[in-house]
Amino acid sequence: MKLLRVGTVGAERPALLDETGVLRDLSGLVPDIDGALLADDGKLARIRAAAASGELPELDAAGLRTGPPVGRIGKIVCIGLNYHDHARETGAATPEEPIIFMKAPDTVVGPDDTVLVPRGSVKTDWEVELAVVIGRTARYLESDEQALAAVAGYAVAHDVSERAFQIERGGQWDKGKNCETFNPLGPWLVTADEVPDPQALGLRLWVNGELKQDGTTAEQIFPVAEVVRYVSHFMTLYPGDVINTGTPAGVAMGRPEPKPYLRAGDVVELEIDGLGRQRQELKDA
Amino acid sequence: MKLLRVGTVGAERPALLDETGVLRDLSGLVPDIDGALLADDGKLARIRAAAASGELPELDAAGLRTGPPVGRIGKIVCIGLNYHDHARETGAATPEEPIIFMKAPDTVVGPDDTVLVPRGSVKTDWEVELAVVIGRTARYLESDEQALAAVAGYAVAHDVSERAFQIERGGQWDKGKNCETFNPLGPWLVTADEVPDPQALGLRLWVNGELKQDGTTAEQIFPVAEVVRYVSHFMTLYPGDVINTGTPAGVAMGRPEPKPYLRAGDVVELEIDGLGRQRQELKDA
Repeated sequence: MKLLRVGTVGAERPALLDETGVLRDLSGLVPDIDGALLADDGKLARIRAAAASGELPELDAAGLRTGPPVGRIGKIVCIGLNYHDHARETGAATPEEPIIFMKAPDTVVGPDDTVLVPRGSVKTDWEVELAVVIGRTARYLESDEQALAAVAGYAVAHDVSERAFQIERGGQWDKGKNCETFNPLGPWLVTADEVPDPQALGLRLWVNGELKQDGTTAEQIFPVAEVVRYVSHFMTLYPGDVINTGTPAGVAMGRPEPKPYLRAGDVVELEIDGLGRQRQELKDA
Repeated sequence: MKLLRVGTVGAERPALLDETGVLRDLSGLVPDIDGALLADDGKLARIRAAAASGELPELDAAGLRTGPPVGRIGKIVCIGLNYHDHARETGAATPEEPIIFMKAPDTVVGPDDTVLVPRGSVKTDWEVELAVVIGRTARYLESDEQALAAVAGYAVAHDVSERAFQIERGGQWDKGKNCETFNPLGPWLVTADEVPDPQALGLRLWVNGELKQDGTTAEQIFPVAEVVRYVSHFMTLYPGDVINTGTPAGVAMGRPEPKPYLRAGDVVELEIDGLGRQRQELKDA
């Protein structure tokens, strides 16, 4: 299923994009798409049955904003340097184990919302990422099977990053990862049953129409199952948590000088096979 | 005012500790102590008036658990190496600007709840910290006055840290800061009007009755106002967010070998002048 949330900021209603591309209202069935729903197999089955029977009311998509596909996100765990090609372009050694940093849930915006270039920023960079949305509490998992069973679904994430804040301002990457609007998410949460192999997804990102990142999750150093299993030994993952699993090569930081960092007026588009497409215009904060 | 939340985990009710030390029920006035309340001057004034008039019902404190004093925390921003004496003991240079890392809100537990030593941990360490609770949205603040006006109040925080996870496991401190139960908070949120000088508070921490940390916020490299102002240029702070402002000298990491890291059975007690006292027993996860 493709689950999403549509409407104005903070007042999104739950919806489903059906197999014919028609938007369906879920607000009669569930209050929101969030951790509580993703942990509830019964409710998910009821949505599935309602979708199959054709009884869900159609929603008029015209003029409707798409919000982030998950509400009440508890935490966002990010994996750094998780693609062989991206580690090479940044000049970093291949990590021996996953690098973990965090984004606050309040950085999340819809897939087509405005992204703000922070005041004083000259190194705002792009990163297309496969986001993993957690559906079951994950704590000290031992196997890849347990890890994948904890995944509710997948989405496109844009892990916007200010490189000077991240690297040149005295320590810890979080400083350049938590500016407001720095985590567009969506358009959809695609349930895990419709993503048979998360390690075979193409990811692409364009700036002003020019293809900048053209990667595949096959290049991930630590695949999704390993990431979820690993993270669960350092923190407990809860339904509604999100893991941004890293970005492939092609970011601005990895290019020759003058590096083409983002500025107000730029347009970034992102897509991942089967997970939909984002489009953001950059503005000054 | 001393605001707190009492009751079982996830079902805490709002309460007030009055000036005579009697616990008063606030659940008839407000649904919870959270960002929405802290941003609402009218409701805070109503609580203050009700407390003064003596009309708040008394709560029987016997056997009642104290939860964290703030519900629905949005994010926890942490400042690293923010005391001159602590920077010296770790062998680190004095930071030129605040170091920022993050803890997830799901690490927060009550002030006397059990703290779990993570599986595989041999370097679980203590850190008593002054927590700042935000009451107004703070974005690109320019002055210390604006920064202090954004502070709703203060609390005791225990920034429990696994040093091997934090430093020896491939990068970014967050990996050793987000284990479950790693952020006891409380007992109270003391409103800012009752903390005339946040840079004149003694902080103390004991392990098994032995005094380990005995510091003062006067030793902070970046005082509270500067921290709030600085952070607001890298991320937007919202009502209900928390900033852990760093720890003074005396942590296990700063001691000669064999360093006395925490183990199951240890008891940690913490206090800050005017903000109350915590007591946690350590158990294995």
